Amino acid sequence: MKKIAILTVVLMAATATFAQQNLFGPAQVKSPEINADKTVTFRLQAPKAVKVEVTGDFLPTQKIETPFGTFDAPGVAQLKEGKDGVWEFTTPTPVAPELYTYTFKVDGLTIIDPANVYVNRDINNLSSILLVDGNELTNHFKVNDVPHGTVSRIWYHSAHEGIDRRLTVYTPAGYETSGKRYPVFYLLHGIGGDEEAWLTQGRATQILDNLIAEGKAEPMIVVMTNGNISQRAAPGEGPEGMIPVTMQLPKTMEGTFETCFPEIVKFIDKTYRTKAQKKYRAIGGLSMGGYHSCHISKQYPEMFNYVGLFSAAINRESGVSEIYENFDQKLDVQFSKKNRPALYYIAIGNTDFLYKDNMEFKAKLEAKGYPFVYKETDGGHIWRNWRIYLDDFAPRLFK
Amino acid sequence: MKKIAILTVVLMAATATFAQQNLFGPAQVKSPEINADKTVTFRLQAPKAVKVEVTGDFLPTQKIETPFGTFDAPGVAQLKEGKDGVWEFTTPTPVAPELYTYTFKVDGLTIIDPANVYVNRDINNLSSILLVDGNELTNHFKVNDVPHGTVSRIWYHSAHEGIDRRLTVYTPAGYETSGKRYPVFYLLHGIGGDEEAWLTQGRATQILDNLIAEGKAEPMIVVMTNGNISQRAAPGEGPEGMIPVTMQLPKTMEGTFETCFPEIVKFIDKTYRTKAQKKYRAIGGLSMGGYHSCHISKQYPEMFNYVGLFSAAINRESGVSEIYENFDQKLDVQFSKKNRPALYYIAIGNTDFLYKDNMEFKAKLEAKGYPFVYKETDGGHIWRNWRIYLDDFAPRLFK
Repeated sequence: MKKIAILTVVLMAATATFAQQNLFGPAQVKSPEINADKTVTFRLQAPKAVKVEVTGDFLPTQKIETPFGTFDAPGVAQLKEGKDGVWEFTTPTPVAPELYTYTFKVDGLTIIDPANVYVNRDINNLSSILLVDGNELTNHFKVNDVPHGTVSRIWYHSAHEGIDRRLTVYTPAGYETSGKRYPVFYLLHGIGGDEEAWLTQGRATQILDNLIAEGKAEPMIVVMTNGNISQRAAPGEGPEGMIPVTMQLPKTMEGTFETCFPEIVKFIDKTYRTKAQKKYRAIGGLSMGGYHSCHISKQYPEMFNYVGLFSAAINRESGVSEIYENFDQKLDVQFSKKNRPALYYIAIGNTDFLYKDNMEFKAKLEAKGYPFVYKETDGGHIWRNWRIYLDDFAPRLFK
Repeated sequence: MKKIAILTVVLMAATATFAQQNLFGPAQVKSPEINADKTVTFRLQAPKAVKVEVTGDFLPTQKIETPFGTFDAPGVAQLKEGKDGVWEFTTPTPVAPELYTYTFKVDGLTIIDPANVYVNRDINNLSSILLVDGNELTNHFKVNDVPHGTVSRIWYHSAHEGIDRRLTVYTPAGYETSGKRYPVFYLLHGIGGDEEAWLTQGRATQILDNLIAEGKAEPMIVVMTNGNISQRAAPGEGPEGMIPVTMQLPKTMEGTFETCFPEIVKFIDKTYRTKAQKKYRAIGGLSMGGYHSCHISKQYPEMFNYVGLFSAAINRESGVSEIYENFDQKLDVQFSKKNRPALYYIAIGNTDFLYKDNMEFKAKLEAKGYPFVYKETDGGHIWRNWRIYLDDFAPRLFK
C-alpha cells in the first residue's frame, strides 16, 4: 500500500494544475459543513482578508429597492476570522431542507467557495451549491439508490432555421431494453436558460427518477429543449464557443421557437420509442418556458394533452408573429370539446412579479369556463418554486 | 421591444441570485479576452486588493522541488491595477493554440475568474478555462459545424459489486436512425478522475465528432467508464451526494475494476448496436486508465484488438489480485499468434515521471519481439498530452 500512497502524492504533484498548494500549502478547509443539528458552517481561508461575508438563499431575504420595484434578495452574514486565517460562519438555527446557492464576498470581491467543487451556473452567475436534505421534496433532489434513467445530449436539425441544435433527453430506467413505447413531456426553460437549466438547478433527472421509482409518476421521456432559437446549444457547447453568457438573446419571445416547435416533436417521435399521439404528450415550462408552452399548445391544439405554466411570462411577446395573433380565439379552439387538454396547470408564487399577469389569465379562463388546475406557493420567481411545480406536475401526467 | 427590455431587467432582478450586482453594481469586466494578435488579456475587478496574480499553463512553467522530485508547475504573472479597481495582465507574446486552465490569486486567496463562466474541475481543483484556437489539433477541441454524436449518461448494474454504476457513452452522429452496428472504444480515465474526465478536460466528444466528420476516424461508440469501482458515479452524480472530492478512493488499482470489466462490455453489447467481436473492440486510457487497459487486455486476451496506453502507470498495483499474477506469461498469451492485437499503442511525454517505467515496459516488449506503436511527445503527465494521444489513437482504430 505504500507504493500507491507514493504514487498518489506524485500524481497529485503531476496532474493537479496547482499541485503545490494541495501538497505543500495549508490543508483545505471543509466548507460547507452540514452539522448534526442541521446548522451549516461556511469556512474560507483568507489570512489577508479584512472582511468576509456569505450571501445565499439559505439566509432570510432582504428587500432591495430598484427603479422597477422592490425585490427580495438573499441575506448577508459576516464570517469571523479564527486561527490560521480561517474565516467562519455557522447559521444560528438549523437550515431548512432545500437546494441552495451561495457566494462569498471577500473585501468586496464576490467569489464562489473555493472548498466546494459543486458549482451552479444561473445564466452568467456562478455560485456554490448547498443541498440540505430532510423532507420528501428535497429527497427527490438526491440521487437515491433507485433505477436511474439515461440523460442524453442529442442534436436535431432545424430545417426552419437551417442549423443543428442541441436537446437534452431523459429516458426512464429500462428504456434501452424494454422495447416499450413511452409518453413524452417537453420541459422548457426560462429566459437566459438553455437545455441544461432543468438538469442543474431544476434537478429534473433526480425528480423524475425518484417519482417514477416511487410509482408516483408514469415512466416517461422528458425532452429539455433550448428555447433560444438563434442559439445552437448551451453556452460553451455550441459552435459559438466559450463566449460570455448574456441574459437576452435575439429571437427568444418573438414567435420563431413556437412556430417551429413541431420540428422537435417530429424528431423525437422519429428518434425515440414514443407514443406519438396527443394523449401521450405534455408541455410545460418556467417563466419564458411557460409562455412558450402557452403559445405552442394553443397554436397546435392537436399536439399536447397536458400543459404546465410555471410562473409563466404571460403577455410578454417582443415581436410580431402569427403565433401571437387572435389569442382568445385560439384559446377557444384549444379548449373546445374536441381539443380540450386533459390538464391545464397554472402555478405561481404569491410574491412573483408576474403574479398579477397570471391572475388576469386565470380570471380569463374562469370567465370562459375553461377548466384548469391552479397551484399557488410562497415566494417569487425562483428555482425553488419551479422544482416544486415539476415535482407536483409530473405525477399528474399520462394517467 | 421596450416591453421585452423591461422584462429582461425585471427578470434579471428576480432570477439572478445576486441580482443587485448585475443591475446596480459596476459593469462586469471581460476576461479572458483573446486579442486580435492572439495575446490574451486577463482582468479582475478588485478595488481593495493589494496584489493580484494569474497562474495557468499558458505561462512558461516554473520548477518546483518536492520530496518526490522536481516538477513543472504553471508560471505566475502579476496583474496591474488600472482605473475603477480593474486589474489587468496581457501576455507579452501571442498564446499558442491550446486548451488552458488558469486561476487568479488575490492577496493569497486562489479563485477562479469571476467573469468567466467556463469552469474546469480536475479532481478537487476548480479552474477557469481558456481555449485558444488556431491549429489542427485545437480545431478538434471545438464544437464545429459538423454532425454531432450523442453523449449519454447511462447506468449499468455491477453484479460483481452489487451496485448500479454510471457510464458516459458517445454514439456517433446518425447512430439513432442508421440501424447499423458500430465498433466500440472503451476510454478510461486516470486516478482521481471519473466518467466525466474525458469529456471535460479530454474534449473527447469534440475530438471524435471532428475526426469522424473529417473521415479520419471510423464512426464508433466510445464508452467512458468510472474506474473507481467503489464509486457509483462522478462526484455529486451518485448516491454519495455532494461530498468533498478526494484524489484516492478505495479499490482503484487492486484488481477489482479489471476483474469485472467484462460486465461493462456485456452491458454495452446488450444495450447498444455494437459489433460485438474482438475485431471491433478497443481499450485505452490515461495514467491509471492506461494501467487498467494493460491489465484488462492481458487478462482477457480474446476481448480487445486495439490497446492504448497513454502515460500509463505501469507496475503500480496497490493490492494482491489474480489479475496481477503471472504478468509476463499473460503478456505472452496476449501477444501469441492467436490473440495478438492489431494495435498495441504506447504514448508518453518525455518529462513524465512515469517515463522510465514506460521505457522499461517498452524494452520488455521489444525484447520479446512483440509489435507496438510508440509515440513520444514533449511534456509531462498532463491533459495536453492525453488529448494529443486520443486525437492520434482514434484514427488508427477499426481499419
